[in-house]
Amino acid sequence: MKVPPKLLSFLKGEDKFFIATHISPEADAIGSSLAFSMALESLGKVTVLYNRDPVAKFCHFLPGHEKFKNVIPSRITSELPLILLDCNTLKRAGIGDLRFKYSIIIDHHETEEDFGDIKWIVPEAAATGVMVFYLIKELDVNMTKEMAINLYSAIAIDTGTFRYGNTTAETFRVTAELIEAGANPAYVANNLYETWSKERFALLIMALNTLEIKDNVAITFVTRNMYKKTGASPEDTENFPAFTRIMKDVRVSAFFRELADNYWKVSLRSKGDINVALIASQYDGGGHKNAAGYEIKSDLESAKGALLKALPFASHSPIEK
Amino acid sequence: MKVPPKLLSFLKGEDKFFIATHISPEADAIGSSLAFSMALESLGKVTVLYNRDPVAKFCHFLPGHEKFKNVIPSRITSELPLILLDCNTLKRAGIGDLRFKYSIIIDHHETEEDFGDIKWIVPEAAATGVMVFYLIKELDVNMTKEMAINLYSAIAIDTGTFRYGNTTAETFRVTAELIEAGANPAYVANNLYETWSKERFALLIMALNTLEIKDNVAITFVTRNMYKKTGASPEDTENFPAFTRIMKDVRVSAFFRELADNYWKVSLRSKGDINVALIASQYDGGGHKNAAGYEIKSDLESAKGALLKALPFASHSPIEK
Repeated sequence: MKVPPKLLSFLKGEDKFFIATHISPEADAIGSSLAFSMALESLGKVTVLYNRDPVAKFCHFLPGHEKFKNVIPSRITSELPLILLDCNTLKRAGIGDLRFKYSIIIDHHETEEDFGDIKWIVPEAAATGVMVFYLIKELDVNMTKEMAINLYSAIAIDTGTFRYGNTTAETFRVTAELIEAGANPAYVANNLYETWSKERFALLIMALNTLEIKDNVAITFVTRNMYKKTGASPEDTENFPAFTRIMKDVRVSAFFRELADNYWKVSLRSKGDINVALIASQYDGGGHKNAAGYEIKSDLESAKGALLKALPFASHSPIEK
Repeated sequence: MKVPPKLLSFLKGEDKFFIATHISPEADAIGSSLAFSMALESLGKVTVLYNRDPVAKFCHFLPGHEKFKNVIPSRITSELPLILLDCNTLKRAGIGDLRFKYSIIIDHHETEEDFGDIKWIVPEAAATGVMVFYLIKELDVNMTKEMAINLYSAIAIDTGTFRYGNTTAETFRVTAELIEAGANPAYVANNLYETWSKERFALLIMALNTLEIKDNVAITFVTRNMYKKTGASPEDTENFPAFTRIMKDVRVSAFFRELADNYWKVSLRSKGDINVALIASQYDGGGHKNAAGYEIKSDLESAKGALLKALPFASHSPIEK
């Protein structure tokens, strides 16, 4: 993977940066931002790390996560160049109303619009973390254990710990180097996957008990009342949409989360060629081909019905081999 | 990893081999045996692949799995040298009553007894598949796509797709080469983890509904009646013991499977330094430090009680970082 020389020379020439990533950030957004911030600071530069949302509890094991600010210091945007990581529009970062003197995009998502003075977008990169790995190497910065843990976690989460179709030989070679730099696979996996509270697990069991399978679509849901019953919270439903994927005949996993009366967040996961981002976009939602989401104001049964209607291909679409 | 020269010269000097692996074989046993058999056959040699048990459905995606025989051809043992893979005693392979003219052991489990004319045992290898990878390289055999899929699957299953403590930088480098030789991570992961039947998933939900947590031990069970209710089978409980591991405070996951009246198979999964193999050995069972099992003739409640009694350290043992 080749880092654009223009990007490298710009980074070398500036002293201060404003680093932002997408709202509701996960380990790729947080981990790649933190590692990049650490690398720039090791070169004597100053970085301000911003996210509209607080760093979720499941990312609190990432070294340096407390550096993220959720408030924008005054006048910062007129002074500092922006580095947007793991997303490519200001809107996706929740800062659509701000303007910057210079903007750099580093992302592995397809571009949605023409934004950014320097755009480095590599859709075939398994994670933004892979791109930052090469960037750090090109900047001749020593990969510290803290950077390595952040980048390993970024890659692990975006590849489903090396299970998704974006996982390549290159992914494995990069992670091998990150392990040699100090990342511990079991420690990261333990923190990513084995830190559930009993309350969260009780909520999962309750959600699984709502399972319905229709036309190769597995549907589960969580109501606000279930939070009360289990003591869990909405944040605890992270990963719930993926569970029903393990069934061979399930082509799409749909998870409905009650936001308010007759108001649902729908998370979709698909296999193979089924592009659920297309369905999400019909409701002004977003995401990737195999993982997308949207919100719908409707009762649950109607929302389920509308989804099944939008997925007529679910039962006869082939799976990639 | 260095392959013993004595092993290489023996393999080169013989023409026919009897390859056996442990009973209830999983993807490391089957995959490493198949890849090794293919490599030897590409050198013009003849191999007989044997397992006491049929290859389970979840391993039917492994190329060549149909080569495994469950019956031993007459007089074979007096004629052929034995290669024992992924186990190191005849008993573990279910052939304790047979004698061989020469025996080779290739395994990553600690030795239980002094058996084998050539013993290559590497407990720090993530899987026997890693050892066979180096063996195939040393034999100067071209790594085919079929061999690569078998070895990748072997390594994937034994590392929990790169999540367990046995996962190292070397594991990642070896798998990178296997991907370049034709193994597809998503295809393997899909076949290992996303081929559940609806009946199996229904059984999982039923098992999760039995969850009890005591002293950091999560206990679930499946009765024979649940197979009837769901249409699932005992084989479908593969992986069930691991599910409750995702809870942070759970140190040991115990899964009880009813074999007959007052007769249970107990599968244990532990985190960090908790050695469940020690408990299993008290009941003449076996396994690794973090994954072991045994059988017990008792009613369910007494069996649970005995286990909790044997695990007094569960609540205060630290987790490795």
